[in-house]
Order: sequence, then C-alpha cells, then structure tokens
Amino acid sequence: MALKLNIKKIDIEAGGKPEVLLNKEDAEELGVHSMDRVNVILHDSISTAIVDVTEHVIKPGEIGLFREMDKTLGVQCDHPLLVEPATLPESVSFIKQRLYGNSITPEQIYSIVHDFVDNKLSDVEAAYFLASAYVKEFSDEETVALAEVMVETGQTLKFSRGPVVDKHSIGGIPGNRTTMVIVPIVAASGLLIPKTSSRAISSPSGTSDTMEVLAPVNLSLAELTRIVNKTGGCIAWGGSVNLVPADDMLSKLRYTLRLDPHAFVLASILGKKKAAGAEKIVIDIPTGIGAKVENVSQARELAHSFISLGSKLGMDVQCVITPGEKPIGNGVGPALEARDVLRVLENDCGNEDLKNKSLSLAGMVLEMGGKARRGEGYALAESILSSGKALEKMKEIIAEQGGNPAITHKDISVGSNTYDVCARGNGTVYGFDNIAITRIARAAGAPKNKGSGIYIHVRRGQFVKEDEPLYTIYADHDSKLESAVKLSQTLDAIIMEKAILGIVENVKEEQCAEPK
Amino acid sequence: MALKLNIKKIDIEAGGKPEVLLNKEDAEELGVHSMDRVNVILHDSISTAIVDVTEHVIKPGEIGLFREMDKTLGVQCDHPLLVEPATLPESVSFIKQRLYGNSITPEQIYSIVHDFVDNKLSDVEAAYFLASAYVKEFSDEETVALAEVMVETGQTLKFSRGPVVDKHSIGGIPGNRTTMVIVPIVAASGLLIPKTSSRAISSPSGTSDTMEVLAPVNLSLAELTRIVNKTGGCIAWGGSVNLVPADDMLSKLRYTLRLDPHAFVLASILGKKKAAGAEKIVIDIPTGIGAKVENVSQARELAHSFISLGSKLGMDVQCVITPGEKPIGNGVGPALEARDVLRVLENDCGNEDLKNKSLSLAGMVLEMGGKARRGEGYALAESILSSGKALEKMKEIIAEQGGNPAITHKDISVGSNTYDVCARGNGTVYGFDNIAITRIARAAGAPKNKGSGIYIHVRRGQFVKEDEPLYTIYADHDSKLESAVKLSQTLDAIIMEKAILGIVENVKEEQCAEPK
Repeated sequence: MALKLNIKKIDIEAGGKPEVLLNKEDAEELGVHSMDRVNVILHDSISTAIVDVTEHVIKPGEIGLFREMDKTLGVQCDHPLLVEPATLPESVSFIKQRLYGNSITPEQIYSIVHDFVDNKLSDVEAAYFLASAYVKEFSDEETVALAEVMVETGQTLKFSRGPVVDKHSIGGIPGNRTTMVIVPIVAASGLLIPKTSSRAISSPSGTSDTMEVLAPVNLSLAELTRIVNKTGGCIAWGGSVNLVPADDMLSKLRYTLRLDPHAFVLASILGKKKAAGAEKIVIDIPTGIGAKVENVSQARELAHSFISLGSKLGMDVQCVITPGEKPIGNGVGPALEARDVLRVLENDCGNEDLKNKSLSLAGMVLEMGGKARRGEGYALAESILSSGKALEKMKEIIAEQGGNPAITHKDISVGSNTYDVCARGNGTVYGFDNIAITRIARAAGAPKNKGSGIYIHVRRGQFVKEDEPLYTIYADHDSKLESAVKLSQTLDAIIMEKAILGIVENVKEEQCAEPK
Repeated sequence: MALKLNIKKIDIEAGGKPEVLLNKEDAEELGVHSMDRVNVILHDSISTAIVDVTEHVIKPGEIGLFREMDKTLGVQCDHPLLVEPATLPESVSFIKQRLYGNSITPEQIYSIVHDFVDNKLSDVEAAYFLASAYVKEFSDEETVALAEVMVETGQTLKFSRGPVVDKHSIGGIPGNRTTMVIVPIVAASGLLIPKTSSRAISSPSGTSDTMEVLAPVNLSLAELTRIVNKTGGCIAWGGSVNLVPADDMLSKLRYTLRLDPHAFVLASILGKKKAAGAEKIVIDIPTGIGAKVENVSQARELAHSFISLGSKLGMDVQCVITPGEKPIGNGVGPALEARDVLRVLENDCGNEDLKNKSLSLAGMVLEMGGKARRGEGYALAESILSSGKALEKMKEIIAEQGGNPAITHKDISVGSNTYDVCARGNGTVYGFDNIAITRIARAAGAPKNKGSGIYIHVRRGQFVKEDEPLYTIYADHDSKLESAVKLSQTLDAIIMEKAILGIVENVKEEQCAEPK
C-alpha cells in the first residue's frame, strides 16, 4: 500500500524531527496512526518520517513537509511523493522492555540513543526511556553504555598537549564560584583545563552567567580549542559548545518536571567530561540540609558511583564532599559573584570560604595532574594565587574570550537600587536558608539582570546587634528591588539562634461534642 | 519581565496544544525554556501557552502563533502581544511525585487529567504520568479517580428508557465477532445496548471494521442516541463518538510502544462504558497461549479488578473467562467475518463456536438485565435467535445506521483472488497459531481491503488427509495474495499433531580445545 501525495511545504521546524502531516483519510488509507512511521520516496531516495495526522490544513492527497523533511528531500512542490507505511525502529521495543522493568543490553542502549539523536524516535518515546530509570535503576553496565553512546554520538575535543584535567560541582549552592578561581590556578600550573559550565535554570546565577560579566562565554568548538591550547584554560558555556547533543536532547525532556534520574545525571556529567578530553577530574559534592545531597552517606554513595563510572570510561575521578548548607562567597548574583572572584584573585581581602574551598579543590587537581605530591597541592595552589600568577592567567583567558583584561573588582558595576535587610534584634547568626536566598536574589532580577542579587554581610556564629545589616539586596531595576524587599520580609534568609524553639502547653482539649 | 512581540501566524495546528514559538534571544530575555509556559496578553485577556524555542523562522521580536492560539486570541497581525513568563501548572508536580513512586490523591489525579484535556500539559509530561504506572501500580483509589475524571471530562449518553446493558471483550483473538450476534439478540429482548467498538490496530479486523461491511459505523452522538432509543441497539465506531476525549488523548501516547498500563486499561474500558450510560456489563476475557491473558489465574485477577472498579463506579460487572487459544468463527477479515455473523443470525449452518459463545454471553446479559432468571439466559437468547427476531433486529439496526437491510450472507463479496493452503500429509489438527493467522490475514490486505483475510476449514482434533485444504487465503488484490501466500509457507498457522516433538541424542561433544 502506497499513496502518491502532493507536497505542501510548512515553513517551520518540527523540533528537529523528520515529521510529516497527513490528512486523516490518507492516514486511514495507509493504515497509519499519529506517531507511526512512513517511508517518503522520491525517485531512488527513501526517507523515514514520523506521522502526525490532521483533519485540517492538509487536504486528502497532500502531504505536509516541515522544514527538516523539506531539506532532507530537497524537493520541488510540483513533484508528488510516494508514501508508504514503514516499520517502527527496533529501539522502540527496547524502550518498552526497559519500561516494563527489564534490564537491556549495552547494544540496545546504543541503539536507542543513536535513534534518538538521529531523530528516529519521538520525544514521547524518549521520555519513556527516561522514565524507565524510575521503574528500575540503571545497572552499572547500562549506565556505562549510556555515557559511552552519549560521547559516541557527539564530538570529542583534542588538544595539542596534556594532561587534561577538569573539575565539576553538582551545584545547588548560591555563590560557590570556585571554578573561576580554580581554572586560572590550574592553567597557570601548566595543566590544561577546558572548563565548560552551565547557565542558571532555577538558581540566581550559573558559572557561565557570572563569567559573562567578565567576558563572552558563547565559544565555538574551534575557539575553545584554540584558547585552551594557548592559555591552558577557558570558562565557556557548555550550551554553545554542545559537545554531547544526546545529553542536550534528553535534558530538555527532563526540564519541566526537573527530573534527575541517577544514571542520566551521571552519564551526562561524565560523558561531557569525556567528550571534553578530560583525563583527571575532581568532583565537588556539596552536602547538607538545603543542598542537593542531604547527608554524608548519600554523598559517599554518589562519589563511589562517579569514581566507578569514571574508571570504566577511562577517567581518573576523585570526589570531595563539602559543606552545602550555606552560600560560598558573600555575593549571590552574576556581578556580585564576579566581584568576589576578582577580589580573591587580586589577593584583595576576598571571601575566606571562597578562597579556601577553591584552593582545596585546585590543590587536588594539581596533585591528580602530577604538579604536586600528595598533600602538597593546596600549598602549590596558594603560592600560584598569592604570587599573582593566577590573576595574570585569568586576564589572559578573559582577553582570549573577548573580554577586557584590565578589569578589576572595582570596575564591576552592581545594581544601583539597594536595600539593607537588618537584624530585628541582638543575636547570633545560626545559619542560612539557601532556598530563601535564591528566591530573593531571583526576585531582584538575577541572573538576567547581571547587577542584581544579594550581598551577605555576616558569617555563621557572628554576633549582630539590632538594626545591623545582615545582607543587602541589589537590583538593576527599581520595581524588582521592591519585589525582592517584599519577599525578604516573609522569608528568613538568615536564621538567628533562638533560646526557645517552641512551647508545648498542657491545655485540656475543648469539649466540642454535643451533650449525650 | 515582559516583552512586546509581533505576531507571526503559522497556519497549522500544534496537535491541539496552545503552543507558541519564540526566538532563542527573546526566550533568554524572558528566562524561559522549551516546554516552559508564558502568558500571552492582549488587552484584558490572558492566555497561557507552552513555549517552543527556535533559532529560525521566528525572528527576535516576533511570536509564532499556531492555529490553536490564533483562534483563542482572535488577533490581528498588526497588533503586538505582551508576553511574560507564567508558572507551570501544579499538576506537573503531582506527575513528578507519582513518577518518583508515591501515590497521589484522587484530587491530584483529577487535576492532572483536567489539565491534560485542557491542553495545559504537554504530551511528554502526560507520558510521564502514564509511565508512573510502571514505577508503582495505581491503587484502587487512584484507578477509580482516573476512571471518574475520564468520564467527568467527557460526555455522557442519556436514553429515554432502561436498563442499559453492554458487553466488552478485551480482544486479541482473530474472528470473535460475538458482538454482532449479541447486540441484536439483546436489543430484541427489550434491553438497551449502545455498543461502541474499536477498529483494528494490529489485528486483521475490529468489530467496527466488520460491521462497516454491512453499514456505516461513523455515527455522531446524536445519531447513536436516536438509533438506540428507536431500535434498542447499535454497533458504532467508538472513535467517531469520542465520548471520553481523555482516553483518546492518553491512548495516543500509549500507541507506538503498545503500552497497556493496568489502571489505564481498566479506566479506559469502564470509563467508556460509564459514559455510554451502561448499568450492567458482561466482560469477555479470552485466555490461553497466544491470547492477551495467558492463564486462568491471571484472568481471575483481572476479572476481580473489573468487578471491583465497576462497582465503585456504580456499575454491575460480570466477567467470563473464555478459551483464547484459537479463532472464533471460520472467517478472519472484515467481509469473511461479516458473512459468518449473518449465517449465524440467518440460522444458516453458521459456525458453532461463534454461535455458542455469542449465546452464552448474550444469555448472561439477558440475566443481568432482568429478562431471564439465573441459568435461563442462554435458552432465551437461543429462542430469540432461532425465532428470527435477532436477524430482524439486526436488519433494523443496519437500516438505521444507513446500510442495506436486505443483505444476506450470500450478498457479501469476499476477495476474488484465493489460494488454498493444504495439509502436507495426513494428520490431526492440534491447534492454531493466532499470531500467524493474524499476520497472514493482514498480509492479504485485511482490514483495509474488506474482502481480504482467511477462511479456516478445519476444527481442532479433526483428521485431515494430505492435500486437503486447511484454510483459504482471500485477497482483493493480486499482489497482496502473493505476499500472503509467501508468508503462509513460512508460518504454521494451523498446527498438526506430531508423534515426536524432537530427538535428543547422546553425542559426545567434540574436543575443540587445543592440546595442553
């Protein structure tokens, strides 16, 4: 059964999928349903497309071609196409098996991911593959296969020398811009560190948003390779490089539900490192109430997963479990964080937590990369920082990425609308509510408004007097300041110690029952 | 944050979803991603739409409106729209909870299905809801809620009298056109039976495909109601009535993977019955190797689920477990089955299995509907059939649905290209391979070509001689006959008894190992 159909071009994209629109009558004639596949034949060339059935727009006898199919076929409108039912890709049955709770083979995982990247699977079909991770966790073998095929279906960076190192934080902590201190230290030591980072999705700033205050981060693959070969490092936005398209496509399907299936998260992180050519990696796992990982035993388990998967992918991984219940650095928001980073690099009384954590992680990277003996990495990192070599390297990287290398922390402009949130009484700082901090900083305009965010003035355990400022809200726009201030009045971003947490009284319950 | 964007109309439908296309730059400006929601504001009216981000077609400063949004807003092209980020529907978080293995409340299930039917959820989000049934089975409470909200979001049939009865088969058996015998018997008894059936998806024919040989089955709600009020019964295609749009929308997402999550299947079947106004229902569960349910204990479990869910929905359900390892009737394919049905109704030496099974089920329906005492339904059904009242009623229904009531089994034209598949030696018929029968009948052109299919000449246990025909392949088209014949040579659709199933010899394994 095949039909000759006239082309109707539809001048939009079907999300990369080779999709065609058929009229309901023709679909019935062919015996195909929405999501079925058809072969579209022109002369000797056959392409397979996913069907969408409509009762409007496309008349019987017509076939609607979206841009993707139009390009694939390169057809003229006056030439009819032969259309026939095609079989489903075999990978569809592997997805079903997995959703039904069965493990599948590495070859089957390869086939699923290849078909998805080649646009042979619909988003709904791929979503079932993701969902299958909640039916039954991916085995180590399955997770390795997932990471391998992600790398295989993407591009891999090659550099003129080595070793190539990297660092990664699983994130979730406001501030925490250690990457921007670590990269210049490591690059200054002679190691290569081609760092790609994310932008904020639900946080006040991602490393890419903060770096963008100093230099463009949308680098092409060629630019990134050139810069790393020349300076030893870079701080680029991963989305612009898109080394691993499979990860990008799967992440989109996780987005609205904020799904983070274990195997997919592991494969995403380590697959991208592998594609970036990394041989040795330090992974930071912030842990604590309000962080992504809530306790040390969970963190240890995750660390072992990273190490084991890394080793199977031929990479040396070490993990650091760090305190995750408070922001790292005083600033939260792109410009405020960039200022914190430059103060540390300039040796200008920078935030101690940010400096100390960055040196610890940089030290580990230096040890793994063979630049320092075990236990001596921290001291080497410190000497690179205090000597000014790290700052010099950062200026080099900024210049190569297209920014102004002469910038100092004093040149960074932060939001001109400010408001001090002050202590309501004398007391001691007990801790921080990361979620509240994030909400207030975003209400002030971060990450979109670079100068917006908050600046924290106090440390845990610090005694503060009534009306002393706890933190300052910065906003580029007046109206956003107002929203953030309102929010700050309903949320305790900074939690004070209390002598009494609550009182339970021995009160008799009232007799509500009717008399019998 | 809001943007003023100029409208670009896109003259196709986005699968019913209120979707808008934004340029990547504007999406970044608004801080929204693909699958996020935006409010689209025109004067005082606000509509929420799902975002798709593109780098082509839609320029910065433009917003692409698909037909759905265009209609909702009813806007002119020269009027800019105000676009701002909107929050996700709360139901998204309920889906996530369920996918993470937690039960959710009936109210949360209501909210998910309402939002999906109202096009507030994307297909990917709804697919995660379906997938969650594989993470953790739906509880009884959840399944009831699912069925209830399916009915609530659709339409319900009302008839001028009662009681309203129905029958359903979970399907999977070639032939098995009992519905077309049962409906006229039951309607002739004075009960109302508004039967809607499916078309074939992967089988050689659905009840709707077979009924269509005799009369149109695409009835509107109004037609169906009129016909049932007048004649007591109908045999319509469920897809044309579409009483339960939620079921239709969810079924589409199950289609390519052929997913049949328990709760969704139960809710789909009983939800549709409830919407059709049924009070008493008999459900046929064909059971055996090659059927959907493989053994009686599974069938009993399923039966209890139907009965329990039915009772919670206020319907009286009885289930019949029937043999499912062989076709019911001689014909397989629309016209061949329709001929079988008419022969039974005409009392013209019809197939005994088809007649007997139809009378058994019809008898149960008559008992449930109060027309016969317990144990006396079969006899009543038989007397209605043998008296010719059932045939008369069938002609009435055919006439009302727009067919020719004068038709007899002799008028039905079957495929003119035929081929007899014969026994390769003397022997006894052991059984049937339903899957092989289905494949051969479909290769011959069923269900699209009404006259195509196969006709089985033998019964289980029957002794046949070499070269005696086992079955005949019928095809409307010559080329299809050829494919079906080829397939018949590789498949044993009819399995003969064998004295020896295999021989295991005591052979020493060859020494392949190298000498040590």
